[in-house]
Amino acid sequence: MELIIGPRTYSTWSLRGWLVMKRTGADFTTVDVRYETQAQKAALRQVSPSGFVPVLRHGDTLIWDTLAIAEWAAETYPEARLWPADPMARALARSATAEMHSGFSALRTFCGAGPDRPIVGEARSETPSDPALDRDLARLVDLFRQMRSRFGQTGPWLFGDWSIADAFFTPVAARIRHFQIDLGAHGDDGAAATYVAALLAQPDFRQWETEALA
Amino acid sequence: MELIIGPRTYSTWSLRGWLVMKRTGADFTTVDVRYETQAQKAALRQVSPSGFVPVLRHGDTLIWDTLAIAEWAAETYPEARLWPADPMARALARSATAEMHSGFSALRTFCGAGPDRPIVGEARSETPSDPALDRDLARLVDLFRQMRSRFGQTGPWLFGDWSIADAFFTPVAARIRHFQIDLGAHGDDGAAATYVAALLAQPDFRQWETEALA
Repeated sequence: MELIIGPRTYSTWSLRGWLVMKRTGADFTTVDVRYETQAQKAALRQVSPSGFVPVLRHGDTLIWDTLAIAEWAAETYPEARLWPADPMARALARSATAEMHSGFSALRTFCGAGPDRPIVGEARSETPSDPALDRDLARLVDLFRQMRSRFGQTGPWLFGDWSIADAFFTPVAARIRHFQIDLGAHGDDGAAATYVAALLAQPDFRQWETEALA
Repeated sequence: MELIIGPRTYSTWSLRGWLVMKRTGADFTTVDVRYETQAQKAALRQVSPSGFVPVLRHGDTLIWDTLAIAEWAAETYPEARLWPADPMARALARSATAEMHSGFSALRTFCGAGPDRPIVGEARSETPSDPALDRDLARLVDLFRQMRSRFGQTGPWLFGDWSIADAFFTPVAARIRHFQIDLGAHGDDGAAATYVAALLAQPDFRQWETEALA
């Protein structure tokens, strides 16, 4: 089983897929691809039907989207408990995860990752400013506060125990760090910042970071 | 149980959620909301934490993303078989669905829906032209052809039997119709066009269309 990933220093979706696969405890290898040049993009198309990463190759099957990989992993490794056990908590965790999957476009535009704006290491960029970004950050803080308030008693993660939602928000935490965003200016009472710090302190993320910087 | 939806004439995501819920066979009511004015948007925020539609209200819980609603429905109504039974087919169906959920941005930009570009009825717009749109359409045709070739022997839908993926691509079929897109110019041998015609002929979609135009 292979997880095909982009550059570890800035491929946010690869990080999400890798964090989920790591939590399964399953044996998998990573295949690093790049997509700066036309030749690299053409080569990527051979293994990624959508042209995106990550892609999970399992036998003859290519699972080509991060959320589909996550759902496959949750079904295939139930003992890893990648979603909350309670059906309604699971529906909320999927809502938050899916909102990240398709939304927060201003955050992704203004605080995007790239070779010079990495998700790892000490590099920092100036905090961008835009009304659409403000709306995304207010929504993010609201989401984090609400879910932490509801599930905080059962664990430090967004839905108490660790879940796929935490994998999806880890690169967001790295963007908040890189762009030095003060969540207090967007409605946080400290709960969102504490959660962001927990994401950045995850041993799996620290391992990814160490390997990316090696 | 309530499904909160936007205007039926042009809310593509509401259509997706409604098609899935319809297939469950469950009793649910629809709540129509609008979001043209600031007051309407503020009212929507009271029932939709993300500000988007559709939202499924089930008891005290709001499930606020279409894909999360779909996964909840698939789990809650297993007899409706909303995903393929085979795990690998299911992983592919989720990949295609998730790709639609987060991708095809040029298609959504150039062939977007709105009050004057409805997903229902006889209105038609001129075919737009853009290299990014061409790339999305080529990818769409390739995806449809590949999946129909692989699963065509078991049924007329993208993965043989009807699945959530078909709900996700129904509004795309409506965009292809409205913008009079010739899939043959984007690599189709007829398989993609046949599938698009099947989506548009779905009784559930025809019902949505009739109610939207009423």
